[in-house]
Amino acid sequence: MKNSQKTCYQGCDSTYKNADIVLFGAPFDATTSFRPGTRFASKAMRQDACGLETYSPYQDADLCDLRVHDGGDLDLPFGNVPRALKQIEAAAGKILRDGKIPVMLGGEHLVTLGAVRAALKQYPALHVVHFDAHADLRDNYLGESLSHATVMRRIWELTGNSRIFQYGIRSGERQEFAFAQAHTNMQRFTADTTQLKALLPPGAHVYVTIDLDVLDTSVFPGTGTPEPGGLRFQELLNGLLPLKGLPIIGCDVVELSPPYDQSGISTAAACKVLRELLLLLKGE
Amino acid sequence: MKNSQKTCYQGCDSTYKNADIVLFGAPFDATTSFRPGTRFASKAMRQDACGLETYSPYQDADLCDLRVHDGGDLDLPFGNVPRALKQIEAAAGKILRDGKIPVMLGGEHLVTLGAVRAALKQYPALHVVHFDAHADLRDNYLGESLSHATVMRRIWELTGNSRIFQYGIRSGERQEFAFAQAHTNMQRFTADTTQLKALLPPGAHVYVTIDLDVLDTSVFPGTGTPEPGGLRFQELLNGLLPLKGLPIIGCDVVELSPPYDQSGISTAAACKVLRELLLLLKGE
Amino acid sequence: MKNSQKTCYQGCDSTYKNADIVLFGAPFDATTSFRPGTRFASKAMRQDACGLETYSPYQDADLCDLRVHDGGDLDLPFGNVPRALKQIEAAAGKILRDGKIPVMLGGEHLVTLGAVRAALKQYPALHVVHFDAHADLRDNYLGESLSHATVMRRIWELTGNSRIFQYGIRSGERQEFAFAQAHTNMQRFTADTTQLKALLPPGAHVYVTIDLDVLDTSVFPGTGTPEPGGLRFQELLNGLLPLKGLPIIGCDVVELSPPYDQSGISTAAACKVLRELLLLLKGE
Amino acid sequence: MKNSQKTCYQGCDSTYKNADIVLFGAPFDATTSFRPGTRFASKAMRQDACGLETYSPYQDADLCDLRVHDGGDLDLPFGNVPRALKQIEAAAGKILRDGKIPVMLGGEHLVTLGAVRAALKQYPALHVVHFDAHADLRDNYLGESLSHATVMRRIWELTGNSRIFQYGIRSGERQEFAFAQAHTNMQRFTADTTQLKALLPPGAHVYVTIDLDVLDTSVFPGTGTPEPGGLRFQELLNGLLPLKGLPIIGCDVVELSPPYDQSGISTAAACKVLRELLLLLKGE
Amino acid sequence: MKNSQKTCYQGCDSTYKNADIVLFGAPFDATTSFRPGTRFASKAMRQDACGLETYSPYQDADLCDLRVHDGGDLDLPFGNVPRALKQIEAAAGKILRDGKIPVMLGGEHLVTLGAVRAALKQYPALHVVHFDAHADLRDNYLGESLSHATVMRRIWELTGNSRIFQYGIRSGERQEFAFAQAHTNMQRFTADTTQLKALLPPGAHVYVTIDLDVLDTSVFPGTGTPEPGGLRFQELLNGLLPLKGLPIIGCDVVELSPPYDQSGISTAAACKVLRELLLLLKGE
Amino acid sequence: MKNSQKTCYQGCDSTYKNADIVLFGAPFDATTSFRPGTRFASKAMRQDACGLETYSPYQDADLCDLRVHDGGDLDLPFGNVPRALKQIEAAAGKILRDGKIPVMLGGEHLVTLGAVRAALKQYPALHVVHFDAHADLRDNYLGESLSHATVMRRIWELTGNSRIFQYGIRSGERQEFAFAQAHTNMQRFTADTTQLKALLPPGAHVYVTIDLDVLDTSVFPGTGTPEPGGLRFQELLNGLLPLKGLPIIGCDVVELSPPYDQSGISTAAACKVLRELLLLLKGE
Repeated sequence: MKNSQKTCYQGCDSTYKNADIVLFGAPFDATTSFRPGTRFASKAMRQDACGLETYSPYQDADLCDLRVHDGGDLDLPFGNVPRALKQIEAAAGKILRDGKIPVMLGGEHLVTLGAVRAALKQYPALHVVHFDAHADLRDNYLGESLSHATVMRRIWELTGNSRIFQYGIRSGERQEFAFAQAHTNMQRFTADTTQLKALLPPGAHVYVTIDLDVLDTSVFPGTGTPEPGGLRFQELLNGLLPLKGLPIIGCDVVELSPPYDQSGISTAAACKVLRELLLLLKGE
Repeated sequence: MKNSQKTCYQGCDSTYKNADIVLFGAPFDATTSFRPGTRFASKAMRQDACGLETYSPYQDADLCDLRVHDGGDLDLPFGNVPRALKQIEAAAGKILRDGKIPVMLGGEHLVTLGAVRAALKQYPALHVVHFDAHADLRDNYLGESLSHATVMRRIWELTGNSRIFQYGIRSGERQEFAFAQAHTNMQRFTADTTQLKALLPPGAHVYVTIDLDVLDTSVFPGTGTPEPGGLRFQELLNGLLPLKGLPIIGCDVVELSPPYDQSGISTAAACKVLRELLLLLKGE
Repeated sequence: MKNSQKTCYQGCDSTYKNADIVLFGAPFDATTSFRPGTRFASKAMRQDACGLETYSPYQDADLCDLRVHDGGDLDLPFGNVPRALKQIEAAAGKILRDGKIPVMLGGEHLVTLGAVRAALKQYPALHVVHFDAHADLRDNYLGESLSHATVMRRIWELTGNSRIFQYGIRSGERQEFAFAQAHTNMQRFTADTTQLKALLPPGAHVYVTIDLDVLDTSVFPGTGTPEPGGLRFQELLNGLLPLKGLPIIGCDVVELSPPYDQSGISTAAACKVLRELLLLLKGE
Repeated sequence: MKNSQKTCYQGCDSTYKNADIVLFGAPFDATTSFRPGTRFASKAMRQDACGLETYSPYQDADLCDLRVHDGGDLDLPFGNVPRALKQIEAAAGKILRDGKIPVMLGGEHLVTLGAVRAALKQYPALHVVHFDAHADLRDNYLGESLSHATVMRRIWELTGNSRIFQYGIRSGERQEFAFAQAHTNMQRFTADTTQLKALLPPGAHVYVTIDLDVLDTSVFPGTGTPEPGGLRFQELLNGLLPLKGLPIIGCDVVELSPPYDQSGISTAAACKVLRELLLLLKGE
Repeated sequence: MKNSQKTCYQGCDSTYKNADIVLFGAPFDATTSFRPGTRFASKAMRQDACGLETYSPYQDADLCDLRVHDGGDLDLPFGNVPRALKQIEAAAGKILRDGKIPVMLGGEHLVTLGAVRAALKQYPALHVVHFDAHADLRDNYLGESLSHATVMRRIWELTGNSRIFQYGIRSGERQEFAFAQAHTNMQRFTADTTQLKALLPPGAHVYVTIDLDVLDTSVFPGTGTPEPGGLRFQELLNGLLPLKGLPIIGCDVVELSPPYDQSGISTAAACKVLRELLLLLKGE
Repeated sequence: MKNSQKTCYQGCDSTYKNADIVLFGAPFDATTSFRPGTRFASKAMRQDACGLETYSPYQDADLCDLRVHDGGDLDLPFGNVPRALKQIEAAAGKILRDGKIPVMLGGEHLVTLGAVRAALKQYPALHVVHFDAHADLRDNYLGESLSHATVMRRIWELTGNSRIFQYGIRSGERQEFAFAQAHTNMQRFTADTTQLKALLPPGAHVYVTIDLDVLDTSVFPGTGTPEPGGLRFQELLNGLLPLKGLPIIGCDVVELSPPYDQSGISTAAACKVLRELLLLLKGE
């Protein structure tokens, strides 16, 4: 029976075995402090991706030229943060051990911690490239150490100094900016990555995490903690394109919260960022 | 890789071969005259069905006890009405020929014409049970003979008199009510089906079409042509339960338009109607 | 050039001269205390009326059999309450003096005061039939005597005791209910008008004002002060139908606030109430 | 400086010391499995309560006659379920020990567990009266024992058999209904509490928990797991009024999720239920 | 009776006879593949235009200085694509033969084909200036040759090479970009029209079609196929102003879909583009 | 009892006595001509401010370093414009006489007239700095002299020529632009304030009024009269930062209308503008 029920993300219909890249969703928003809803992101992206072409005129490349498998969404427990992170780590770990690139669709930003834990096991000298509105460098948030607001601090505890590159940061506590000055490479307000390649040590592997709220609220209203003054879509794209050629071994796109955007433009933006990100991985 | 990506409607994971019932979507709304959007109904239902239990305390029965296959959505052309109807007829026809019961998720009400055409080929003496706010008995609408507002008239041309049973009708032109008096069995405002079994000739096969706008706008706001004064959910349910035991050989649930209901209660109502409808088919 | 731009309410295309009934909008919500927006009601009703048939199966009557003129919306000043009321009084007064029935689309409930002032000039022994969730009998509201919450008190000052019949009231201050016991005929929670004809003195003229929030929030969410526990649509309809045959010389439908109902069901309810109300006037 | 900034729920401006009743919010939705957002309920209720009168024509009583303190919202950690429950237990416990009645505004239904734990310490023979669409009797949900879907099971483990009275239940797994038959008093679909007083042992103390999704989706769309077929507002009210005179020592109103109802009618329903519930406590 | 019911677009109240420019709506969205709703665009624009001044500080010109007639909306059949296009062609043809400039409000982009067919009859050497996010150069779409995604290809079949100027294109299949390189003048991503006047042959007549999704999703979320990365409003304006003085004989503004933008900013953008476009026509 | 009920704007918890700055809300929108709702702005800002940090990386300053009191919202009468303005004048006057800086949260723009009247009593040589999309220089609007569209004209009548500096103006009638040329300092389209300090006479006191619709509709959709073509958030910020060091004796932020922005980004923008504005006042 001929049918069009998409069982996978548009253009991502390779089998797991044949795939170079494996997409999966991490529908988790238990630590979101303001407006929850990122749990619906991966489903919304799969559904609305059909509004976008698979071809990118920016990179003159097409999703159909890649071999991507869509592994679906993880079954994460609600309200059990450590267990959820373990499941994410396991899923990303298996993909990495199988020699493929995991691409995770959040969920809130804390899910990145699970994937980075797995990546560090495989690539101990991992560097993390981080696009975000928020520094996410708090030591704890309302008494909890595992939170979307502490995720980069937790990752820093694993990587140590100078291995986190932060772009587009426009929000944080005074202490977070001070911490960044001492321990990470932070670019405030803008996302000029043209020097990144030169800053990385030779042979460094890279994990890219994109908190989509680095985009301006105008282009990405559907997120948990909206704050104006962010990047236009083209500015984020300009920050992504120089990553082409870097040894990216994993990445994620997080913090889309569809219920807060009835117009659907936030999901459209997430899908387009994902397309460009996937096309960056080509040939790696 | 363990995942929860639902590739089929909740509880409908039989293979086509093993299934007694085959679900499929007909995402089509080209003749909708007021507010389009029913094309998104089947996708929304698959996504939100997880908010509902598979068990019905009304029928003390569970979807998991059935063998239902979800065949996904048809790839219908936009703007070509006759071709779309042909594809629907072909899909329903194959399911019927394979000895299974087609259950179609609209789409606008015109899609029913395609399915009934197929059903009539297999079961020439078919009777149609129709729940709706609108009579749908116009001869043409804005000059077009194929329209959501003419669908029951087109079906009547195929079945002849006395083989259409209409329930809950609260809207139409004066002529449509006159036509019904002469040619169909119409119950206005209410949906008391307790006499239906007695009215059907022995051995008659039945196709059930539920235009969900038979429900009151309060419980089902997300539809193309909302009109208050309809049935409460329990009133529709009471109209459906007496159908248990009838030889239903096909059915559909149409006119859910998710974009017009940000709260999601219309999709929830559609899913619950579908669950009860599927459970009615058990043992047929 | 053939076109479908509706310059008047559906089925209300008589000239002013030929009309028996004159519809006009009073887009005014300056004293609304909670959620403004009723200023958009008449425009929304004109636009969405096409989703409803002109024929009523409840009354077996059709708007097309009436002679109704749509006089458009008044140009009311924003923020000048007394001047706005004067303009409404003038508009309704002219229609009445021309021997026609004014049918006003609010706006907030205070607009009724303007129309009733005009009606009382023409018909000094006027009785007012009032459907509402709220008693609207406060003497003042936040220090203002002209308010949607005081409108029936102001009207009582003009009519005196026993000439106001209130139906469906489910909200008010304790003092308002006490006031009603002494000065008006109030039916709480329900709208059983079957005794009304008997209660009216012979030859009494009647003005009917319908605050649509008498309907339950489920069927009419789009209003300034939503409160559950109201009438189902059929219950209001049952309250209206016994008015057939009364000498209704004017009426209004108020408090639809379209911005608070993205689904449009409130506008649909307002249009259907208006249709039934207009058809009640037939033959008067 | 004169101002109207409401620092407490409308009509609840007693000091803690003078109050007989203490209101507090528990903004927590970490285990919500479908649509989160109940964390915003108490804030929305405080803001919109002004649309409702303090006087109830149903009980001829006024909130202003009570002495209620609004203790504000608890600062609950995001993503740490056990710690959040402990904080709720502590807050409710202090109010109970001070001889006052705690009235909690959820939050998801799991918050009830914290309050009931505190109540059982003070009143070991506590009976629980439970209004809900869902049985909430699962033993675990996606592997977690603390969940909105398991809360009544956890409470049963504390109270033992026959001390839980469930009303309006229309959803659950087959096993939950079987469990209820053996261990609780469950009324399916309806909420007829007229026999409750007779069923309670003499001197039994009562905790009342109202999951607002017992209401039909039409009147209460803004909730995490909407399912049609519920109670009309008046039906719930009829179920509440017979509780007058019972020794209610604590209660809660849960599962309002404002983001899923742009029209605000769900918040209005929650406020009106709360008003009637508070007025039931008068004279206890 | 004085009233403010706008029977025409703000500032467009000339009679047909006196008018130099004739506005009309083409409410048609039958081939829309993703999110329908553009059928409501012209009505929404007429209603919301009052939020905008008739004076443009950009051009120091006022709509009131023009003679524009608003001919209302065409009565297009739902679901019959060829017939709808014929009606559009007839309407535009009559306006053109009467020596006036047709300005069409879509509807989806396919409506442009009808108007261009009429224009080519009158002005065989017509050139088409096209602002859009999408190339719209597919040969067919889901098997249909008449579609919003094929409209420029169909127009190219009528005009031949080099007579289509495309601006702002940021989306399409690889083949569409290849086709454009061979057959049209396409500017990707930007809309710099400063060279356009020089590129046109002497005496060339011009038809301007503006698919409003050329604007960024941030300023124009309410459209069928939203895609970020478009023009800011000022960038589109800068692309339009150099058209002043060109012999524009017809134009349109298409793809506004009001249901997908609850905030109304998309309709506001459409109205402002239309105002500037109309003012460009002055003196031609 | 520990709780988190915010009784004041985030970071504004000084007592009135200790405060240097006093925040208060003016929930008033009675003259709003298009879309009302600004009455809800101050409440929405208090509620959503928690989504924003108190620290500004733009100014390297923190709200916690200021002494700000939140005086709550004024109790303004609905529908009585002169009385409302008097109450605003009284509230602002008291704050000014007590040597503190009033910071008013609108409400519609007319509220500024009340505050400026008070400021002129205290500081007769006051200069007004005005950010806005609209000139607001009409002499009257629909026959009313007190209106959001006339507010700057009324203020000009009090200050005389050359004491009003207008930035970002992109909308108005032709006459308003002419009036500005003669009587105020108007910068059209942009907000370059770098010359402002030089233009002010020595010792001039300054009142700053920010109509947030100076921002582009993309970043600020939730407003009464949306019009595209405005400032990006950073452009407004760049216009505000040069005000640091000016003797600002009062200011306001007006025209946020939360009901028209379901996504909440407009409220987020208002909160961030307010934060930056408050931090500008530090050290004055």
